[in-house]
Amino acid sequence: MQIQPVLINGQWIKSTSSKTFQAVNPATAELLAPQFPVSPWEEIESVIEAASAAANEMRGWSGDRFAAFLEAYAAEIEKRTDALVQTAHQETGYPESPRLRDGELPRTTNQLRQAATHAREGSWAQPTIDTVAGIGSLFGPIGPVAVFGPNNFPFAFNSIAGGDFAAAVAAGNPVIAKGHSSHPKTTQIFAEAADAAAKATNMPTGFVQLIYRTSHTDGCRLVSHPLMGAIGYTGGRNAGLTIKEAADKAGKPVYLELSSINPVFILPEALAERSAEIAEEFKGSCLMGTGQFCTNPGLVALKAGEAANAFIEQVKQKFEAAPAGVLLSEGVQKGFQSGIAAIQSAGATLVTGGGASDGPAFSCANTLLKVSGSHFLKNPAALQEEAFGNASLFVVAETDEELTQIAECLEGNLTGCIYSHTGGSDDSLYDQIAPVLRQKVGRLLNDKMPTGVAVSPAMNHGGPFPSTGHPVFTSVGIPAAIHRFSMLQCYDNVRPHRLPDALKPQNPNPGLWRYIDGMYTQEDYSA
Amino acid sequence: MQIQPVLINGQWIKSTSSKTFQAVNPATAELLAPQFPVSPWEEIESVIEAASAAANEMRGWSGDRFAAFLEAYAAEIEKRTDALVQTAHQETGYPESPRLRDGELPRTTNQLRQAATHAREGSWAQPTIDTVAGIGSLFGPIGPVAVFGPNNFPFAFNSIAGGDFAAAVAAGNPVIAKGHSSHPKTTQIFAEAADAAAKATNMPTGFVQLIYRTSHTDGCRLVSHPLMGAIGYTGGRNAGLTIKEAADKAGKPVYLELSSINPVFILPEALAERSAEIAEEFKGSCLMGTGQFCTNPGLVALKAGEAANAFIEQVKQKFEAAPAGVLLSEGVQKGFQSGIAAIQSAGATLVTGGGASDGPAFSCANTLLKVSGSHFLKNPAALQEEAFGNASLFVVAETDEELTQIAECLEGNLTGCIYSHTGGSDDSLYDQIAPVLRQKVGRLLNDKMPTGVAVSPAMNHGGPFPSTGHPVFTSVGIPAAIHRFSMLQCYDNVRPHRLPDALKPQNPNPGLWRYIDGMYTQEDYSA
Repeated sequence: MQIQPVLINGQWIKSTSSKTFQAVNPATAELLAPQFPVSPWEEIESVIEAASAAANEMRGWSGDRFAAFLEAYAAEIEKRTDALVQTAHQETGYPESPRLRDGELPRTTNQLRQAATHAREGSWAQPTIDTVAGIGSLFGPIGPVAVFGPNNFPFAFNSIAGGDFAAAVAAGNPVIAKGHSSHPKTTQIFAEAADAAAKATNMPTGFVQLIYRTSHTDGCRLVSHPLMGAIGYTGGRNAGLTIKEAADKAGKPVYLELSSINPVFILPEALAERSAEIAEEFKGSCLMGTGQFCTNPGLVALKAGEAANAFIEQVKQKFEAAPAGVLLSEGVQKGFQSGIAAIQSAGATLVTGGGASDGPAFSCANTLLKVSGSHFLKNPAALQEEAFGNASLFVVAETDEELTQIAECLEGNLTGCIYSHTGGSDDSLYDQIAPVLRQKVGRLLNDKMPTGVAVSPAMNHGGPFPSTGHPVFTSVGIPAAIHRFSMLQCYDNVRPHRLPDALKPQNPNPGLWRYIDGMYTQEDYSA
Repeated sequence: MQIQPVLINGQWIKSTSSKTFQAVNPATAELLAPQFPVSPWEEIESVIEAASAAANEMRGWSGDRFAAFLEAYAAEIEKRTDALVQTAHQETGYPESPRLRDGELPRTTNQLRQAATHAREGSWAQPTIDTVAGIGSLFGPIGPVAVFGPNNFPFAFNSIAGGDFAAAVAAGNPVIAKGHSSHPKTTQIFAEAADAAAKATNMPTGFVQLIYRTSHTDGCRLVSHPLMGAIGYTGGRNAGLTIKEAADKAGKPVYLELSSINPVFILPEALAERSAEIAEEFKGSCLMGTGQFCTNPGLVALKAGEAANAFIEQVKQKFEAAPAGVLLSEGVQKGFQSGIAAIQSAGATLVTGGGASDGPAFSCANTLLKVSGSHFLKNPAALQEEAFGNASLFVVAETDEELTQIAECLEGNLTGCIYSHTGGSDDSLYDQIAPVLRQKVGRLLNDKMPTGVAVSPAMNHGGPFPSTGHPVFTSVGIPAAIHRFSMLQCYDNVRPHRLPDALKPQNPNPGLWRYIDGMYTQEDYSA
């Protein structure tokens, strides 16, 4: 039995581990052949040391070097498209097309290339110059970054290819990728591409490294190690909070993206106006990828009445008519079931689904639950349990005030949506709810479901705790996502020839924006 | 016996507390008359609720409102100049002039006015617009901010008047000030000025509030309360880490500025070139304010030799000739003494001082210690103990490599300085040390002592843990300092008339910079 190698310090080597694991095809519940190691602490420590050596070697490197790597990497990924798509399909159950081949993979290479463009341009570092005081500052690399990828985006959030990876590299850091156990082979193919690109662009050997799995204890030791710079984690809340606690105690910046139920408020006149259209949008958003999106709309707030009843009935029929998709793993299936059970225990009733499906091996029936607004307000914490998958909860309020109170009771979320009448008939209610919802979510939407997360500089894929660990930061959207993996570096009275190029009088790059004496400019300045 | 009132929800009220404390004049060790309450939890909770109500009331307010308050407040402070200066002199022992009247007070009103300018202009919020995707984002207020001020800047870092206060207000938040116990009357005068300004500018009653002291337990409850937005803390490491742990656990952003020893590397040829000049600069920096600066140079690394010996001797004579200044409190005096003792236990020897002084009641002799580089490298953690006050440690390295290794062993610091020969004779050694030191400090200086912290947009008064809690942020320097008390707020497909003014097509303010489709501009855009 051959155990798959880990990528440490530029070499694919046999792990010293005796513990292994295998991925499972969630559509069939069959074990996939390759055995992957659970890396022991000594191995993780050698990874950290190699990453630290790489960080030291790269001190002062220009963004061009990282841009060259990122672009070479995107091209190496494209060479491996078929293998990535087929492997990810096996490991996740997601359809090869359009999801993996036409959606997520181009998004991933696009993110890497956007990161390259910004690494080269350098504006992300926000060079800020005070010519009178003789001070300049900019964001610079922070050191080795550990990225823990989630199960639900095997490409676009992969620990060695996704948004955190791209941002950490664009900031000039080495990355230690901790692959997700449910798609190790996919991650390995990315790592082969990354390794090839790193060698082709002469990056240090410890620049990109991959381990597949660690014990929980060793995960905490990794994120709190003195040589680490920062941590990116996307995944479940419990594991995330454990990682956060360890990193916080060691003073390591940790960026989490955790669970979010993404409330959608559909105001009464919008429902009266276009209920069929909204029902269809909602079904599409909630069942896409079997609901396994960070931004899945898991709570829909409505105002009681005939229109709401009819809407729920329409959605019910759509959910019953739609096939149950694959869930990513047995763990996801169990988590889904226990989430549904918890929401029921907290007082919600089933509208449809709730049980097994006759679909793929790991799957559950498309599920809808319902609870009254007054009941929700009595037990808001338990009714905000995330059932990660193809489910949502209707909360039906009796009054406008109750709808607003529901917004007041929400935990921090990535997104919040309000559908309102196009002619303005809902506007006074909108004006009550929107300011409340605004403070609870990172992204406020109108008349649109939350599942699309555009890779745009204006995007915020972040939000108040517990949806993330810190509401100033976004994990999607370049350049802002890059800041997370940086530190602010100020130069006071430093001799001009010793300054980083971005702080010197001559703008090193016509695309570079700098904030000089209170003005954003692409011009040079006089020393 | 009259107990001084607390400022809660717009009223000066009698605390429900039976516990009180008094400040002490550190120059004479005499108790100052006024009795101040230690607020009990019920009182703190009512403060939090009032702040939360204020935050709700201020939702959507424009920056003008906060600017008007900040400017009115600066003027109210100036009306109270004599009282503030005299009271702070009594409570801190700092000279009325130039320190308090001519230095710190104008700095404080200047910070408030800078914050006002930026609140009005709005560029700090970094409005970012993607006209194609129909997405816009900007930084917005985060909610009630608790500010814990330090002992060493009774004005410029005061919990109700200093940099954190100004930044939190400029971001649009209410502030709960937790005064420092060593200057409660100074803080009270500020609170009277703030209250007058808040009333004159029609701010909500819970907008600025003051409590003087809490138990440690209640301090932790305050920072982790669900209604809180964020926390700013400047002070000692142990209390700061306790606050951080509580806030981290609750997912509340917490910005700490803790201890820092601010290493200064004086390279051999610089010493050969201008040793007398550097000795004088160093003495001035290290003894200013009796060394009670966050950026006090507490470690000086030198290369062994005649020049180093002569330099140490020169500094010794200056330290012995200079009077011992007042230390802020008996606690500071004890902490200083135990810090000096710890550094000696770790192997350093006294060059001068180390004991009591015949000066003010709370004071210690100007102190210098010395240790070899090789010894420092064996015990770097213990030898980086901060002795907050008029002391510094010389670390004398035998070789260039040892100097570089000393830099490698440093904890995170606010600043790091390198003095080198003006003609370039130290440049190869500079090039070894600077990249290492760069990653260890927030602000890198050349040929200049670290104690001056210019209020400049390019300043970084921050640094890697444990000097602060997060190396992306600065506590001095507007606009960057404002971000700490904000959250990123994205608007996706939101109807144009519902957008904040800063995201609408027409730029609401000619001074406002926006990042629109990849360009910084002050122009309008087409929807």
